Amino acid sequence: MVYQHKDLIGLRDLCKEEILSFLHLAKEFKELNNSDVKKSSSLYGKTVINAFYENSTRTRVSFEVGAKRLGADAINFSSSQSSSKKGETLVDTIRNMEAMKTDIFVLRHSSSGAAHFVAQNSDASIVNAGDGLNEHPTQGLLDLFTILEHKGSFENLTVSIIGDIAHSRVARSDIWAMRKLGINVKLFGPPMMLPVHMEVFDCHVCSSMEEAIEGSDVIIMLRIQLERQDGSIFPSVREYSKFFGLTSTRMKLANKNAIVLHPGPINRGVEMNSDVVDNKDYSVILNQVENGVAIRMAVLHTLNLYRKSRNM
Amino acid sequence: MVYQHKDLIGLRDLCKEEILSFLHLAKEFKELNNSDVKKSSSLYGKTVINAFYENSTRTRVSFEVGAKRLGADAINFSSSQSSSKKGETLVDTIRNMEAMKTDIFVLRHSSSGAAHFVAQNSDASIVNAGDGLNEHPTQGLLDLFTILEHKGSFENLTVSIIGDIAHSRVARSDIWAMRKLGINVKLFGPPMMLPVHMEVFDCHVCSSMEEAIEGSDVIIMLRIQLERQDGSIFPSVREYSKFFGLTSTRMKLANKNAIVLHPGPINRGVEMNSDVVDNKDYSVILNQVENGVAIRMAVLHTLNLYRKSRNM
Amino acid sequence: MVYQHKDLIGLRDLCKEEILSFLHLAKEFKELNNSDVKKSSSLYGKTVINAFYENSTRTRVSFEVGAKRLGADAINFSSSQSSSKKGETLVDTIRNMEAMKTDIFVLRHSSSGAAHFVAQNSDASIVNAGDGLNEHPTQGLLDLFTILEHKGSFENLTVSIIGDIAHSRVARSDIWAMRKLGINVKLFGPPMMLPVHMEVFDCHVCSSMEEAIEGSDVIIMLRIQLERQDGSIFPSVREYSKFFGLTSTRMKLANKNAIVLHPGPINRGVEMNSDVVDNKDYSVILNQVENGVAIRMAVLHTLNLYRKSRNM
Repeated sequence: MVYQHKDLIGLRDLCKEEILSFLHLAKEFKELNNSDVKKSSSLYGKTVINAFYENSTRTRVSFEVGAKRLGADAINFSSSQSSSKKGETLVDTIRNMEAMKTDIFVLRHSSSGAAHFVAQNSDASIVNAGDGLNEHPTQGLLDLFTILEHKGSFENLTVSIIGDIAHSRVARSDIWAMRKLGINVKLFGPPMMLPVHMEVFDCHVCSSMEEAIEGSDVIIMLRIQLERQDGSIFPSVREYSKFFGLTSTRMKLANKNAIVLHPGPINRGVEMNSDVVDNKDYSVILNQVENGVAIRMAVLHTLNLYRKSRNM
Repeated sequence: MVYQHKDLIGLRDLCKEEILSFLHLAKEFKELNNSDVKKSSSLYGKTVINAFYENSTRTRVSFEVGAKRLGADAINFSSSQSSSKKGETLVDTIRNMEAMKTDIFVLRHSSSGAAHFVAQNSDASIVNAGDGLNEHPTQGLLDLFTILEHKGSFENLTVSIIGDIAHSRVARSDIWAMRKLGINVKLFGPPMMLPVHMEVFDCHVCSSMEEAIEGSDVIIMLRIQLERQDGSIFPSVREYSKFFGLTSTRMKLANKNAIVLHPGPINRGVEMNSDVVDNKDYSVILNQVENGVAIRMAVLHTLNLYRKSRNM
Repeated sequence: MVYQHKDLIGLRDLCKEEILSFLHLAKEFKELNNSDVKKSSSLYGKTVINAFYENSTRTRVSFEVGAKRLGADAINFSSSQSSSKKGETLVDTIRNMEAMKTDIFVLRHSSSGAAHFVAQNSDASIVNAGDGLNEHPTQGLLDLFTILEHKGSFENLTVSIIGDIAHSRVARSDIWAMRKLGINVKLFGPPMMLPVHMEVFDCHVCSSMEEAIEGSDVIIMLRIQLERQDGSIFPSVREYSKFFGLTSTRMKLANKNAIVLHPGPINRGVEMNSDVVDNKDYSVILNQVENGVAIRMAVLHTLNLYRKSRNM
């Protein structure tokens, strides 16, 4: 067992071998998910709680599907129903549900650092399913798994991440992991959507879509999270689409057999038009979703093994 | 296997034999539901997602209970939590969850035709759990199952459907199926609650409650869907009850051993008073609910068999 | 089998032996919950519906975890999604879901007496998970279980219940049960938070925190349910904390090895400061939560046994 931690908080903390161990295991779970009986007993008799303090369909469903296929008792709660409205602190809520002998929490929260804080204050295992602007590690892992599947290896790869990088926890998880794997990362987006301290990422920042796409093997288009912008939207959606959108013409600048990823949900006509989204030659967006379940099963399975090895 | 389709969108598309095959199978599942251990392994290892874009308790619970008793992993999502709020299209949401290797979607949506549209754009099986004003096929099937159970056969039967026919997808599913089965259907309701093109249904439209009930073997009272009316309610609730409500006096005009159905939830005192609703001599409303689970299990089981036969 | 009732509505109706039988059984389920595979097949093939007409995280999750560990098909619905919005009565909703062959309902409702009323009108078993200001029997049982665990017996015990007793169904369940077990109960709280007819409880009402705590073996601090107060809050939160809050200084007045309970969620800084809440010498609040799952499993298991014995 390569991975020896109670929790999965971020890819920034992982080494190359740990990242690869998740990808390796996910391959097996992907096979299970494509078999006739999508069921294992790996987490039978274990309790997994999806604690979502931010709305989400796909991530919650992906984890819930994964947990149930592993045989766990999977239970959801969202903040709208929660005692947090009655003034209870996040840690108190989690400790309470931990006292019910919950083994693993899948936690989504609007505050960066929430998953880390809870993990330090709980004996249960925490899987970060997105914390504020910080990380979304299972999305990062599923991006890597999808890239590996299509490219065969991470060697000599150039990946472009394009869009609202400042507000993207997906971009952060991708970047931290890609640097550990020796992947060349290029970034591009509207200036006000780039992080203030870009130097920490140690990535090349491009000055045009053309530069961003030329010579790339993998293009990760980010979602404009309009709901996270504060008030005035500049550039406008139309300008964004023109200057930062991916078109089939621009795709011709990419390397041969380049692929396009997007964490979803897609704003069709904004980040990409439908001719790009639905192009089966290079769009691997639905593969990402499929791989997401396998990655989440690999993470749940791994944390459960760790707990067993420690008699937790 | 009589039924050879990926989806169940509406009863309008079904032939008599297909309808009867569901009723036949539902009888077996009803027995299971009345046994000590209400559990089969028919859908073990399969994933069923209840995608409800309109609020519903009973239909969602009925499908969820059915799917779980068949051994499936059953997962709910409702539009209030959904990415549709983030601007994602319905088809993109479903394709995403399909990529997670979902086998069957149970879909409720406010737009007529939504289930059909999704079914054409997805490899998963779609069960229409109500689409706008169009159809609600499992409700139609459970009505037929309940009628067959009490009447023994569909021969020489007269059924009256009374109330807000224009806004009732239940009425549409009932009518399409009953015509295929050779059942004589009479309709009655306030003029503004009758469909504009009544001729398409090829049913007799009555001009009074007395005419509607006299000589009927089965009376299906529809719910006034106040939430679907646009603004001004005419007739008022009190007028509605007087002119279109079912009373125990009016029931005396029906044929011997006539039965009363209602899709629920009932507005007691509007469509019917409690002395009719709770009359065990003719009210079979709770039988309908019980039969609903059996019908839904029959539908899920049948679609799953179809998928197996096609290696889907 | 000591307990011979279809439902569990309140502890007021139970005799000593019945109460003890739940505590005895809960001990076994607590062991299961602390084992490697937290799973029994006691309710396999049975359907449990959590019908929550009031928001709740912890109680709903506790019941859901318990039902799933017993192997039941567990289904949730909350009033926000419910047909009650469409004008359906509570009894109609429950009868409908009962017609789906639901074995046990866990019901939370804002009206005192709701659980009793539904139980009389349903063949399914009803577990009251809180009805208005009346009772919350599983919380009462888990309090007793926790006390027994720490004190070894109920003999010669003095328990203080402090806070908003008038609005606390937890206090009512505790008091009814403790009187049957011969426990000496003292009450204290702001005058306007004491029930109007205190004499019915036959408990000593204290006139200061010091009197309330001195000589007590168990201190049950209640939550100020600000959401249940009507408008003007008197005393203010600051005053409340000063005159009715539990401090580590005040705890010194209690008997040796006294313990502190709270039904949660805690308003830290109001009923108690964190130095009391988190003091491992006497705070048994998280034990209560752990024991809650075991108690709920004991209740579900017992009602199911009763149903089997009656062929229900």
